[in-house]
Amino acid sequence: GPRKAPPIEQKLPCSLEELYKGATKRMKISREISDASGKTLPVEEILTIDIKPGWKKGTKITFPEKGNEQPNVIPSDLIFIIDEKPHSVFTRDGNDLIVTQKISLAEALTGYTVHLTTLDGRNLNIPINSVINPNYEEVVPREGMPIPKEPTKRGNLRIKFNIKFPTRLTAEQKSGIKKLLSS
Amino acid sequence: GPRKAPPIEQKLPCSLEELYKGATKRMKISREISDASGKTLPVEEILTIDIKPGWKKGTKITFPEKGNEQPNVIPSDLIFIIDEKPHSVFTRDGNDLIVTQKISLAEALTGYTVHLTTLDGRNLNIPINSVINPNYEEVVPREGMPIPKEPTKRGNLRIKFNIKFPTRLTAEQKSGIKKLLSS
Repeated sequence: GPRKAPPIEQKLPCSLEELYKGATKRMKISREISDASGKTLPVEEILTIDIKPGWKKGTKITFPEKGNEQPNVIPSDLIFIIDEKPHSVFTRDGNDLIVTQKISLAEALTGYTVHLTTLDGRNLNIPINSVINPNYEEVVPREGMPIPKEPTKRGNLRIKFNIKFPTRLTAEQKSGIKKLLSS
Repeated sequence: GPRKAPPIEQKLPCSLEELYKGATKRMKISREISDASGKTLPVEEILTIDIKPGWKKGTKITFPEKGNEQPNVIPSDLIFIIDEKPHSVFTRDGNDLIVTQKISLAEALTGYTVHLTTLDGRNLNIPINSVINPNYEEVVPREGMPIPKEPTKRGNLRIKFNIKFPTRLTAEQKSGIKKLLSS
């Protein structure tokens, strides 16, 4: 039988928003097709890809036999591989989303409310009631990524903190802090 | 010619103190030797190993042909491989030594002096004059491990800090801190 040409793989970069909400991507491809006489001619085609909410980097979408047509060869499959573009606020860890908030030491000690815009544009206000130490992590259940195979579940949002210490303190500040924290 | 038996490898656990200062280890081994008539008899031997200051995990010391003697076979080499025992205070990173000091937030902000006993028993006092933030690292030059091939050089001692935050603060403490740190 005729041999099949090896598959063509192509990265499909998606934003974290697209992977969160789902999206429809239209990809224009150029390929050669051959007519009944064996003559080849170039065509352009639009392929539609439905990004499902929660898809991960590495997910493959195969369009069978969408490669160039040549005599006596089965055209190759065209495979798109999901890639995740870096996001300015969130990073993804499996189904979880991670965000790091830069706060002052005073905010860490006296109280802080996290203000965030989710990947689908909602505003979240998360008051932290305890003292925030450098390893503190606030877990917001079900504000992570959707899970394609379990639509009733979701990952978590994990908020970490980067606490900016003052670079220098006056003698008065130091003695005040000593008094306050040793009591 | 006679074949040689494959080498025998044995770990030689050393404390960080021994690898820092150098040490002499005497290892008792039991082996079979054969006399002129070909009869074998067991013997015990003491091997002396000079641990050089700065030796690393994985260093090999070979005693040629110290395995059992058998007719028509060259005895195997006996190879000791330096292994590093975990230390309660210091960890080693190449030629550097790393130590983590647990301090309070008040100490981090108002001043702290590190007291350490070196691996050769000297007392070090290292006053830290700046504010200690969670990523702060104090580097003490030449208080790390010796370097066997460069006796005039030494690694550094790197001091890291684990800052214990208070778990809760009163309203008075909070307002006091807010006042002190925003000024």
